[in-house]
Amino acid sequence: MTLEHDIAASARVRDLLADMTLDEKLAQLVGFWVDQGDELVAPMAGEMATSTRYEEATAHGLGHLTRVYGTRPVDPIERAEWLWSAQRTLQTETRLGIPAIVHEECLTGLAAWQAATFPTPLAWGAAFDPELVAEMGRLIGASMRELGIHQGLAPVLDVIRDPRWGRVDECIAEDPYVVGTIGTAYVRGLQQSGVIATLKHFVGYSASQAGRNHAPVHAGPREIADVLLPPFEMAVRDGGARSVMNSYAEIDGMPVAGTPAYLTDILRDAWGFDGVVVSDYFSVAFLHTMHAVAADRAAAAELALTAGIDVELPSGDAFPALAARVRDGLVDESLVDRAVLRVLAQKEQLGLLDADFTTPPRAVDLDSPAHRALAGTLAAESIVLLSNDGTLPLRPDTQTIAVIGPNADSPHALMGCYSFANHVLALHPGVPLGFEIPSITEAVRAEHPSARILTALGCEVEGTDRSGIAEAVDAARQADVAIVVVGDRAGLFGRGTVGEGNDVEDLELPGVQRELVEAIVATGTPVVLVVLSGRPYAIGWALDGPGAVAAALQTFFPGEEGGPALAGIISGRIEPSGHLPVSLPRSAGAQPYSYLHPLLGGPTEITSADSTPVRPFGHGLTYTSFARTDLTADAAVPAGAAAIVSVTVRNTGERAGIDLVQLYAHDVYASVTRPVAQLLAYQRVALEPGESATVTFDVPTTRLAFTDSAGDRIVEPGSVALWVGPSCDVRETEATLELTGAVHTVTAADARLCTSRVARGVRV
Amino acid sequence: MTLEHDIAASARVRDLLADMTLDEKLAQLVGFWVDQGDELVAPMAGEMATSTRYEEATAHGLGHLTRVYGTRPVDPIERAEWLWSAQRTLQTETRLGIPAIVHEECLTGLAAWQAATFPTPLAWGAAFDPELVAEMGRLIGASMRELGIHQGLAPVLDVIRDPRWGRVDECIAEDPYVVGTIGTAYVRGLQQSGVIATLKHFVGYSASQAGRNHAPVHAGPREIADVLLPPFEMAVRDGGARSVMNSYAEIDGMPVAGTPAYLTDILRDAWGFDGVVVSDYFSVAFLHTMHAVAADRAAAAELALTAGIDVELPSGDAFPALAARVRDGLVDESLVDRAVLRVLAQKEQLGLLDADFTTPPRAVDLDSPAHRALAGTLAAESIVLLSNDGTLPLRPDTQTIAVIGPNADSPHALMGCYSFANHVLALHPGVPLGFEIPSITEAVRAEHPSARILTALGCEVEGTDRSGIAEAVDAARQADVAIVVVGDRAGLFGRGTVGEGNDVEDLELPGVQRELVEAIVATGTPVVLVVLSGRPYAIGWALDGPGAVAAALQTFFPGEEGGPALAGIISGRIEPSGHLPVSLPRSAGAQPYSYLHPLLGGPTEITSADSTPVRPFGHGLTYTSFARTDLTADAAVPAGAAAIVSVTVRNTGERAGIDLVQLYAHDVYASVTRPVAQLLAYQRVALEPGESATVTFDVPTTRLAFTDSAGDRIVEPGSVALWVGPSCDVRETEATLELTGAVHTVTAADARLCTSRVARGVRV
Repeated sequence: MTLEHDIAASARVRDLLADMTLDEKLAQLVGFWVDQGDELVAPMAGEMATSTRYEEATAHGLGHLTRVYGTRPVDPIERAEWLWSAQRTLQTETRLGIPAIVHEECLTGLAAWQAATFPTPLAWGAAFDPELVAEMGRLIGASMRELGIHQGLAPVLDVIRDPRWGRVDECIAEDPYVVGTIGTAYVRGLQQSGVIATLKHFVGYSASQAGRNHAPVHAGPREIADVLLPPFEMAVRDGGARSVMNSYAEIDGMPVAGTPAYLTDILRDAWGFDGVVVSDYFSVAFLHTMHAVAADRAAAAELALTAGIDVELPSGDAFPALAARVRDGLVDESLVDRAVLRVLAQKEQLGLLDADFTTPPRAVDLDSPAHRALAGTLAAESIVLLSNDGTLPLRPDTQTIAVIGPNADSPHALMGCYSFANHVLALHPGVPLGFEIPSITEAVRAEHPSARILTALGCEVEGTDRSGIAEAVDAARQADVAIVVVGDRAGLFGRGTVGEGNDVEDLELPGVQRELVEAIVATGTPVVLVVLSGRPYAIGWALDGPGAVAAALQTFFPGEEGGPALAGIISGRIEPSGHLPVSLPRSAGAQPYSYLHPLLGGPTEITSADSTPVRPFGHGLTYTSFARTDLTADAAVPAGAAAIVSVTVRNTGERAGIDLVQLYAHDVYASVTRPVAQLLAYQRVALEPGESATVTFDVPTTRLAFTDSAGDRIVEPGSVALWVGPSCDVRETEATLELTGAVHTVTAADARLCTSRVARGVRV
Repeated sequence: MTLEHDIAASARVRDLLADMTLDEKLAQLVGFWVDQGDELVAPMAGEMATSTRYEEATAHGLGHLTRVYGTRPVDPIERAEWLWSAQRTLQTETRLGIPAIVHEECLTGLAAWQAATFPTPLAWGAAFDPELVAEMGRLIGASMRELGIHQGLAPVLDVIRDPRWGRVDECIAEDPYVVGTIGTAYVRGLQQSGVIATLKHFVGYSASQAGRNHAPVHAGPREIADVLLPPFEMAVRDGGARSVMNSYAEIDGMPVAGTPAYLTDILRDAWGFDGVVVSDYFSVAFLHTMHAVAADRAAAAELALTAGIDVELPSGDAFPALAARVRDGLVDESLVDRAVLRVLAQKEQLGLLDADFTTPPRAVDLDSPAHRALAGTLAAESIVLLSNDGTLPLRPDTQTIAVIGPNADSPHALMGCYSFANHVLALHPGVPLGFEIPSITEAVRAEHPSARILTALGCEVEGTDRSGIAEAVDAARQADVAIVVVGDRAGLFGRGTVGEGNDVEDLELPGVQRELVEAIVATGTPVVLVVLSGRPYAIGWALDGPGAVAAALQTFFPGEEGGPALAGIISGRIEPSGHLPVSLPRSAGAQPYSYLHPLLGGPTEITSADSTPVRPFGHGLTYTSFARTDLTADAAVPAGAAAIVSVTVRNTGERAGIDLVQLYAHDVYASVTRPVAQLLAYQRVALEPGESATVTFDVPTTRLAFTDSAGDRIVEPGSVALWVGPSCDVRETEATLELTGAVHTVTAADARLCTSRVARGVRV
């Protein structure tokens, strides 16, 4: 079963609606979080906890069951038994017998005990490999279907705008096209397994002031349309996503949850989305309590429903208050009917109206060898070699390796904020993970069975305790090389250094980790720095200048197979091929910054502030070298048409390797300011030493579209500079594309062209 | 002569236009900078320097003479003689005989050699005294008229949005109403002396990304309308400003210099402005070279003229290129005529069409006792007492005072970026200032004639030289109290630590000044910290906790009489009465921040980032204490009407003092998010010990207007919380105002109400 086709409400669904009481309708529009308890896995969750009992909440039916598997470390099979029973009860004990949609988090894999933990989305971005992400989505979706889950609250399509924000590790990249292509791949994969994908967080969340969670977004309509919306449009139009979750944010004073311009005008009317919009947890009530645009919860519910939110999650904190308003004639019941129809149509499409819940699953393998293999491949592709003086790969005869740092020997450290472990298990520190995850230290030991491996903690991720540094220095002194693994500990709302609610006003490595690294560097032993983090940090001091390490690797929470992947790259068993999906920042005080800036967003003579990042978007070294040459493009094509662009890439080194061919563009003069560099297309290419390949891109020039002063999305005629290089800022081979003819206005008919079709390079 | 009345083009002006050739018309639309040379007093000035000779540039007449007095340290009388001669030449040697408008910078006083240097605008904000600023404007205007200057390039009405920006010292406050009232007072004063005020920089400049000069502005239409535009509207509608200068910025991709929506639709059509729009220096050419929205300078000129720029400054770098386009029929000559008509009407209004230039001035006193007295009063009112453990005022019997720090004994340090000294003299370090400015050290010595005064530099403002700290520590050890004066050195484009082009990504005090302060604090001698700066710094370490100083004063470049004003406050001769017009920041990484934030822009449970500033907007201590009580407001008034609000303030201490009565409001629920605090009105009140006063504010509820989702400016019915307290965050006495009736749409007819009428407190 796939969910890729459009749906329309059937006669059956319409008849069902006609038969429903107002209470039954409203029950379909809310969720219930059975085991929420006081666990802080959503903003203000403690404060918002409902006191309604499940039996009362489901007396007239229920729209959604919230996080059945995600809130406690219990055996999934045991939980499935409860779920099947709960669905049977809905079928038999409510008048209409409609089961609930079951939704769960699944950003780094199904958020359930014993389920595989894949790399965090920022690592997907670093891998630049949509097909692999689609395969991961299929695996995740299959596990969810087995457990009776219909909807996954992923992917996050927020374009990174400020690394201070704690949720950066949930995002894919700072480039909308990378977010769109990889996010759409995830949507396709998940939905091909029959699970509804939910696009988060529509729209603007990542652009909050100073990177503070839920803070106001300062952005105008062009930035929204040209930077923040495109990934959602791609995932809706090209990916066929069936659900969308609103953003908590307000944009220019208008909370998205209460604004029809986003949730209806753009999403449904312009893009033709006909799925279900679910509220981010508590965000309907937040219209009253946090945004203060509604004087009570009933008014908040009316605002949200009018704007286009169909289902209130995680539970019915505000929507039930609508009943009185409808009965008093203050709210038209048709507003409720519209949402109910969408929910019922989705339940019909899912097969829920005829579902059989007699046989719960007896056994599932949520972390099979297939999961492990894919997790390992994606982790390996996502690791970015930032710098290297030749120390990497390690010499095969390396005798003694010190593995140091707070993230070296911690399986927990490998997991992103939305992993089950970080979402729940941090609250139950005594509970085992439920499966084996090799730490980096363990993986290095396995990778070098005959070497002597010395270990030392050095320091914790957080805090000011320096007492372990001396021991780490000792270990390093005895070693031929020191692998120092620092970075983040993901967590939620004040636990950990990154993750939801963990925003920062400083981009130095947390705690005393920099001191640890500097102390190890001072020993003279070559240092391989591994930054295992959920956001890019200001580590220029480690990359350049007198305190530089011998080699540095950046890995964004690589998941359960991240240890072996890292060890394999360090040893040379695996070729490094990740590239930065986000600029490595100079400092927190230089934020916000985006590589997609116009000329005046970069360094100029008229400001003393150098905004140049420490390493640019797209940067990533290999153990070999590549030359990109002979960029050629159609000399001229009409604005709005497609252009054929090809480039030759050659492995000029002594080792096999993988290049990421990055095609950039700059619209030289335009009627609004345009970025100095924009990634047009990308392709990973594996080449043997001396081998070359020609990569041909079929680039719709609608990829160069922007919103003009009248608010229209257009492609303007004129010159476009094209280049390919090892990162956004290096023009290794150049060409010019002339867009001819009249201004092309992008319409629904050709908007699908906004994804580029990438032809695989032909090896020669 | 005043310029407060509307003008319309006379028959004489229309006849003149009809008689003009295209070259003569274009000549009226440009300036010429006679002595520009290679001096970096405008962005990219070196690069943009024109090679055209004056004689060629004026062959057909000339619109503006640029900075006749401002670019070299020469005797003003000598310069006036040249100017009178140049004007006579224009009268006699050009066909139409029209003199040029002479414009000059005048932000901190006339930017000419030997002219008075007043406090910088951020100090005007701290004084919260519009009447005094108006008087300063009258004095400045009178000096300008004496020297044949017709137009002053001030005030700056940019609302502070990010203290990282180097031009913060040129701005008045982070509150639009404070900017508007004080800026309008300056406009009135200058224009009452017959000099045209120029509102800068219309609009958005201060909101550039990360505080980087000229960087893109991320803002939506509501933020523009409700925060950034109101000061300009007040100065146009209420102040009758006769000229406006465009902002260099782009907003959401649209450079203001090329956007009719700002320069014509809002400014002229909505507000009725009928004066002249002049370009910020080189900004027309920047549409081509920096924003890349025009393929050449002629296209840039057409864009700018179409948008509503009338005159290109500082010289004709782009407008002359229009001639060919007009002759080729590509640009309608009526576009040129529109601007020429405005310029000629302004010249007629100034009396220039009948001016007599036979008698240049023989003597002027640009720094009279009246200038000095006003400069001293404004400086005194602007100094903010941040903290005080009782060390201040100094005991009269203080025997030994150490005066330490890089800004202690430097007259130069007292002057803001747009002072003549900083705009020009920094380029000529050998040239004397031309008049006497007492340094803080000298003023302290004069204030305490019988005390022993020890002095030490300690360190420079910039750099890492710590060699002087030991000597400063020695001096402090010998003293009863140490006054440590640190902060900024204003300058332009890379010279200095603040000022145009001097943006930062760090809000620590520059150089090693913090180390100097900490070393002096460590001596145990009580430290009076004076931060003499052009921006607020992150000095929480000096105000709170174990390293706190005994007392701290903030002074924003206080001008030529700043030394005696500071010494007088330190001794207790003058009562401190300044208040922060801008929040004291926690860190650069916490930026941007504004006190005008909605709930989610402040600290919440859902972010670990604490955005609370170190000291809030409105904070300022005195040597006495005040109690504010009995806030009363009309219980209910129709939305759009005015409300009478009164409060009692009582001096509860032992000394006379001055309170700033600050009335704040919060619209509890609204259809868009609203700030948690908004300054509605303010009034300085001087009270003897035990004395009280009732201050009555007549508050138009249009002060609570905002832009709704449809783009209309409205006042909504509902509850408004009111309070008065010592700063924005303390509700010392509270009341509620109910706005009744229907939504009130603000129209041109009642928009003048956007300034509040403040009734002086009656002393009882």
